[in-house]
Amino acid sequence: MHMMQDLLRSMKIDTGGLVAAIAQDAETDEVLMVAWMNAEAFRLTVKTGLAHYWSRSRQQLWRKGEESGHVQKVREIRVDCDKDVLLLKVEQVGGAACHLGFRSCFSWRLEGEAWVEDGERVFNPEEKYKKR
Amino acid sequence: MHMMQDLLRSMKIDTGGLVAAIAQDAETDEVLMVAWMNAEAFRLTVKTGLAHYWSRSRQQLWRKGEESGHVQKVREIRVDCDKDVLLLKVEQVGGAACHLGFRSCFSWRLEGEAWVEDGERVFNPEEKYKKR
Repeated sequence: MHMMQDLLRSMKIDTGGLVAAIAQDAETDEVLMVAWMNAEAFRLTVKTGLAHYWSRSRQQLWRKGEESGHVQKVREIRVDCDKDVLLLKVEQVGGAACHLGFRSCFSWRLEGEAWVEDGERVFNPEEKYKKR
Repeated sequence: MHMMQDLLRSMKIDTGGLVAAIAQDAETDEVLMVAWMNAEAFRLTVKTGLAHYWSRSRQQLWRKGEESGHVQKVREIRVDCDKDVLLLKVEQVGGAACHLGFRSCFSWRLEGEAWVEDGERVFNPEEKYKKR
């Protein structure tokens, strides 16, 4: 626990207590999503090996996949030179990181001056979440 | 210019007027760095094909590589489902994105509860910047 405190202090968790975290597919290196972590989310991620984030819109801790089942098994955690962004190499269970059903949240590409959809859809979100 | 306005409005440039931008190597898919863009940085990036960012610490527009020569040629721009994070696929001229001389800014890996250096050093920053 003492080392975890040191580890937390080593990061610049300062913008409202949050660091940005990029989830990258450990196999394909595809960038899947970006979310935020507070100290508790980081601690739980390290402890459990499953990605935990802090939802800014809901203001609550969130284990990725807790509703969809699409958890992220964390294979590696990296940090940048400014110690204010994390990079998680993950195994994305279910194959989709995006709540819209895409493999990656980055499924829009700039073409000229417009965003065009360009991503692999793994599930239909209306089907996936309708049971709630 | 009209379409550019629409394009800018399509993104959530709201946290102090900034969006996070991930630079990913277009060839290797390695995540190189994360920086911030304001509307002007985005506009210049699209217009020139070279990555421009907004430096929060210096509070000024910044063309990546303007001092080091290590510019980023932008091959593709993507946006996420929340329209608040950009993903740039870039050709990193000079091979190093990090001001410390590493290929990637994410050159520290969590081992147990400590960060260990784990990155390829392309140049020695003391040599590179000493001419100024």
